[in-house]
Amino acid sequence: MTNPQTIADLGELGLLQRLWRYCPGDVVGDDGAVITLPPGRQLVVTTDVLVDGVHFSDRTTAPADVGWRAVAANLSDLAAMGAEPEGITVGLSLPGHTSIAWVEGLYQGMADCLSCWGGAVLGGDLCRADVASVAITALGTVVPQRALYRSRAQPGQAIVVTGYHGRSRAGLELLLAPEKGHPERGHPETGAGVAQADRDRWVTAHQRPQPRFDVISALQDLLGEAGDTAAIAAMDSSDGLANAVLQLCQASGVGASLRQADLPIDAALTAWVGETQAIDWCLYGGEDFELVLCLPWPLARALQQRLGAPCMIIGKTTATGETAAAPVVELWPTAATAPTRLSLSQGFQHFS
Amino acid sequence: MTNPQTIADLGELGLLQRLWRYCPGDVVGDDGAVITLPPGRQLVVTTDVLVDGVHFSDRTTAPADVGWRAVAANLSDLAAMGAEPEGITVGLSLPGHTSIAWVEGLYQGMADCLSCWGGAVLGGDLCRADVASVAITALGTVVPQRALYRSRAQPGQAIVVTGYHGRSRAGLELLLAPEKGHPERGHPETGAGVAQADRDRWVTAHQRPQPRFDVISALQDLLGEAGDTAAIAAMDSSDGLANAVLQLCQASGVGASLRQADLPIDAALTAWVGETQAIDWCLYGGEDFELVLCLPWPLARALQQRLGAPCMIIGKTTATGETAAAPVVELWPTAATAPTRLSLSQGFQHFS
Repeated sequence: MTNPQTIADLGELGLLQRLWRYCPGDVVGDDGAVITLPPGRQLVVTTDVLVDGVHFSDRTTAPADVGWRAVAANLSDLAAMGAEPEGITVGLSLPGHTSIAWVEGLYQGMADCLSCWGGAVLGGDLCRADVASVAITALGTVVPQRALYRSRAQPGQAIVVTGYHGRSRAGLELLLAPEKGHPERGHPETGAGVAQADRDRWVTAHQRPQPRFDVISALQDLLGEAGDTAAIAAMDSSDGLANAVLQLCQASGVGASLRQADLPIDAALTAWVGETQAIDWCLYGGEDFELVLCLPWPLARALQQRLGAPCMIIGKTTATGETAAAPVVELWPTAATAPTRLSLSQGFQHFS
Repeated sequence: MTNPQTIADLGELGLLQRLWRYCPGDVVGDDGAVITLPPGRQLVVTTDVLVDGVHFSDRTTAPADVGWRAVAANLSDLAAMGAEPEGITVGLSLPGHTSIAWVEGLYQGMADCLSCWGGAVLGGDLCRADVASVAITALGTVVPQRALYRSRAQPGQAIVVTGYHGRSRAGLELLLAPEKGHPERGHPETGAGVAQADRDRWVTAHQRPQPRFDVISALQDLLGEAGDTAAIAAMDSSDGLANAVLQLCQASGVGASLRQADLPIDAALTAWVGETQAIDWCLYGGEDFELVLCLPWPLARALQQRLGAPCMIIGKTTATGETAAAPVVELWPTAATAPTRLSLSQGFQHFS
């Protein structure tokens, strides 16, 4: 068997020509891509960097999944802004020994993700580096009065979460330590195993997250033609559910009171790892790419009804944030038990 | 003396808050930045990745210069498209031991460059990596009929180069081996030294390149209100002058015939390193960030007159490219000497 062909064999120009196949013919080959945007809309821009060994590894992630996740993470930010995708640029740093198959797999995953929600690869840059990294900038557009911001929550609103949290973290755990999910031997602490259907769902949640543009469509429908987003706050939960609630509260100058029983946790997850671990992964696991919204109650209930389970109203915003240095976000285990205060420092931070 | 504070000391959120000072207040703090573009224009997008040890190093480049060059390289691509800058996104990968002063220097350099030609830092992402890299995506806008493309050259046009080439490469040489430019000991091969004014110019050309938006303004002026860019081809010379001519010819299906005597080479550079080396650096040195244009002759002469020296008409496009597999670009040392054929494979390629 011969070694796979590497990008050093092909050279930069040869590789670029191969990758152009993933781009629309009319946007490549110039110093920049020229794009005609729909009139009357604002541009929305977001960017994310993924680094080998930090955000992905060959152990848990095939190249197509790296590409999918990198694009999905950016599209999720666009969804959180209420925007529709136009496309992405890709800044790729790669070691010379990277196989061409890996790079093509990466681009195939990006193209597959874009084909689900719209947008094209609009440009990119390639360069040599000792460690692979993928920097993606996503561009979208939004009708100005329909843009969603973090800072518009008001005290007394409902806090809506659009889906299960902790599944992506569980999927990662099963990829890193598959034996912990063995259906018979089970988890070392709880003794419980994971059914194949749950394992598949959690691994898919980790490898192929789905940006929630469907939530934005439902919300726009409910708002109707004339409705605007002045009393709505939103962000995605890429850095964890606790982080999203805290960021929304901080940006809006409000606090929050959450009910533990209403956290959107997969029952099979609690059965597998136990309640404490499941709550921790739900709040701090990250990468679930759901949306967290602060909404007036009638709109929250209508959205929950439209989306169905596991869309949950997990609590309400409060006025306590207005005077505090950091937002006061309390999680109530039961109505009669003293609450825990959530904090940004518990979530994942780079460099620390 | 204490060690400088590192980004690991500050953490991701702390660093982000410091860097937000370099961004307009209304575009940060959300999942994406929302931007209102001027109506009736197309969006132009370009992206570049710079990696420590490949594109810059502490030996030759202060952090502010890294920031300036990263932005200037992207703005130069916008200029080559005939576009005006709107802003950039910054994807930053950094080792935890990076000093905060280095990151702030980088951002200061980016901000300084943007303040010269317009545009703001519209967003970014930070992550941990073993090697520092900076991925920048620049956004600009262009009046649709004024966009410049590589593919619009026609046989028999003038090839215009907007400034000296080889200076950036000379500046790099002086930074890496200052003794070679010693005014008295001189260059090891030619024995010639470098005057302080030339040294300063060349080092500045390397560290603080200037995107040529002034050329675009002059060209728009000369075209007048009704003129369009249908018979103009353009790109920047970031990857070298030879590369730019070859890319323009390949994209347009033409060849080119260049006169060596008309190459825009600084006389002091030839005096320092000799003619052969000076021509090589002019053609293949790269990073001069000038523009190369294929223009109808009257427009070429008018542009040359408007810009003044060292804007040069270095030759003309020919019909020879139409049937050849690779573009035929010939450099004539004199009218009576057999020409050299330029090739893309002589230029710098990553991975090879």
